[in-house]
Amino acid sequence: MTSDTARVARRANVVGLGLIGGSVAKALTARGWTVCGDDHDAKRVDRARQLGVIATVGIDPDAEITFVAVPVLAGPVAVSAALDATTGIVTDVASVKAGVASAVVDPRFVPGHPMAGSEQDGLDGADADLFEGAVWVLTPTDATADDSFSLVAQIVSSLGAEVVALSPERHDALVAVVSHVPHLASATLMNLADERAEEHAALLRLAAGGFRDMTRIAAGHPAIWLDICTENKVAIVEALDDLLRGLHAMRETVAHDRRDELNDVLHAARKARTNLPARVGNPAEMAEVRVPIPDRPGAAAEVFTLAAELGVNISDFEVFHSAEGSRGVLIAIIDAAMSDLFRGGLLARGYRPSVRRLD
Amino acid sequence: MTSDTARVARRANVVGLGLIGGSVAKALTARGWTVCGDDHDAKRVDRARQLGVIATVGIDPDAEITFVAVPVLAGPVAVSAALDATTGIVTDVASVKAGVASAVVDPRFVPGHPMAGSEQDGLDGADADLFEGAVWVLTPTDATADDSFSLVAQIVSSLGAEVVALSPERHDALVAVVSHVPHLASATLMNLADERAEEHAALLRLAAGGFRDMTRIAAGHPAIWLDICTENKVAIVEALDDLLRGLHAMRETVAHDRRDELNDVLHAARKARTNLPARVGNPAEMAEVRVPIPDRPGAAAEVFTLAAELGVNISDFEVFHSAEGSRGVLIAIIDAAMSDLFRGGLLARGYRPSVRRLD
Repeated sequence: MTSDTARVARRANVVGLGLIGGSVAKALTARGWTVCGDDHDAKRVDRARQLGVIATVGIDPDAEITFVAVPVLAGPVAVSAALDATTGIVTDVASVKAGVASAVVDPRFVPGHPMAGSEQDGLDGADADLFEGAVWVLTPTDATADDSFSLVAQIVSSLGAEVVALSPERHDALVAVVSHVPHLASATLMNLADERAEEHAALLRLAAGGFRDMTRIAAGHPAIWLDICTENKVAIVEALDDLLRGLHAMRETVAHDRRDELNDVLHAARKARTNLPARVGNPAEMAEVRVPIPDRPGAAAEVFTLAAELGVNISDFEVFHSAEGSRGVLIAIIDAAMSDLFRGGLLARGYRPSVRRLD
Repeated sequence: MTSDTARVARRANVVGLGLIGGSVAKALTARGWTVCGDDHDAKRVDRARQLGVIATVGIDPDAEITFVAVPVLAGPVAVSAALDATTGIVTDVASVKAGVASAVVDPRFVPGHPMAGSEQDGLDGADADLFEGAVWVLTPTDATADDSFSLVAQIVSSLGAEVVALSPERHDALVAVVSHVPHLASATLMNLADERAEEHAALLRLAAGGFRDMTRIAAGHPAIWLDICTENKVAIVEALDDLLRGLHAMRETVAHDRRDELNDVLHAARKARTNLPARVGNPAEMAEVRVPIPDRPGAAAEVFTLAAELGVNISDFEVFHSAEGSRGVLIAIIDAAMSDLFRGGLLARGYRPSVRRLD
């Protein structure tokens, strides 16, 4: 990128125009990008054109970035095709990452997963603001070039998302706990109540706010979950086993009327839920951390991954490259209270960060 | 009640001024009642006076109705005390009903349970509109007089609630499934994620809408749940065992990659969640069902209980007593599409209903 590119519209491809692909296309278009899009469903492509979600149909070989937003199991083939058809960076949005990250080894590929959804399916649910305040996980691999990572991180940040970098395997283990197993538990609870409702018609009329909250995600379209469960089987089964153990312990606590123990468990849950991080949290005091990035692939990605490991939220960032070549500086804005922790971690990994409080 | 009572303010007691008691007091006051209230916490009583939630402190011996809104295990003693101290009808709001319904045998007592709550605790969360559109379960016993049942049903309907009548045991079994076990599952899920978050700080930042929905109720105050779990232990353990079985089946389905089976389970849950009855549903066409109530205790309660068993929603109702004595007519407004079903059930129980469509 040179400064000239600021004057002409930036160009992107979106492959797959469902809820996520459609929302990416709308969000980019709203920010002045020229978006070229395609989908295996010709009617959906027509509709996307009519709605102004995309400007042109097909794949633009010179697009700066291609978002691949197809079902999980179709990911590797679609990502490889996008890498072959274009000269730019390619990222995907699949909910499970280890498969595609190991199948596609290319410096231009940055696997990703926006943690955003909607009760609505498909293109008609697409929303330019879907990613505002959402976490967008990037899972760079050893092959991912630093420039590729930085570009994708900057673009998804510009859509309002907060970038969290994780290894693909780590991502899959964590989303099994906070997304996949909750979905399966929600469906199980809904089916349990529905079966009992056959005994007594009033049961579902007693379903108040709590039950409605817990089963809301069970109304989602099942199709994506079949691929997710196939692709992330090991982590899901492990997290389900943990949930089964926890619920069995709860059953024993109730069955034996161990009130003190129940009190402890419920208090712990209350505290944890109350402390759940807000989706968009701006700390009271910020610090600017400047990290010179050595001439080594994956350094920017490593800085982000380390931040996630340490629980440090990068509110904003920029990467500057020095004129001489591939050395550069990553400037990250973080909560000032976390700056010592982050500096310690960076030093331990061989970086030479400097920290400045912003007042 | 004579027609004269319409001219002077109706009088009620509310014993226990927490979230539910405070909301009942506010709702009655907003509808012109004079409310006398008390609580074991003198500060809370002062605050209720200051906020205008109650008009006087203590217990009014001539109040038409007394709402007992104390913790579950304190219920039987408080209900008996209210029956001793007043000449009117007494109802309670505890979340578990079999205990208090068997402990207090009195024609003036109508056990009840409004299915409404709030993230907020205590008097400060109290809201005059809390019961608007909520289901209010009444669980009349063999001892409950028909007049007592009808009066409580009319008063809670006037607060915007929809009355559903169930036997105390049936109520307890159903709320174990739609309220108690979901709460315990929510807490378990929250604790599981919180424990895993010790391994990786980013985990809870990945918690998107679905996880937040599913764990929202875990933020509730644990205190009431200790009593609920003690009092409804048998039904809760049974429903937890069902949930454990369902989750174990889900685990096997995922572990063995049985996609067709998973598809069926998720589709069933989606369908059931989508069909969950709306809290306030006004059918397109209504019918008026007139049910002569014979000279037999518990007939009005039986008509309501039968409606709940059949899944018939009574949108509105009135009870008229004939001048000669205890015979009367119950007029219920229901969904016209349900009128044959309801009529069949009433005929089978020896009633002589007549149905008229309302246009």
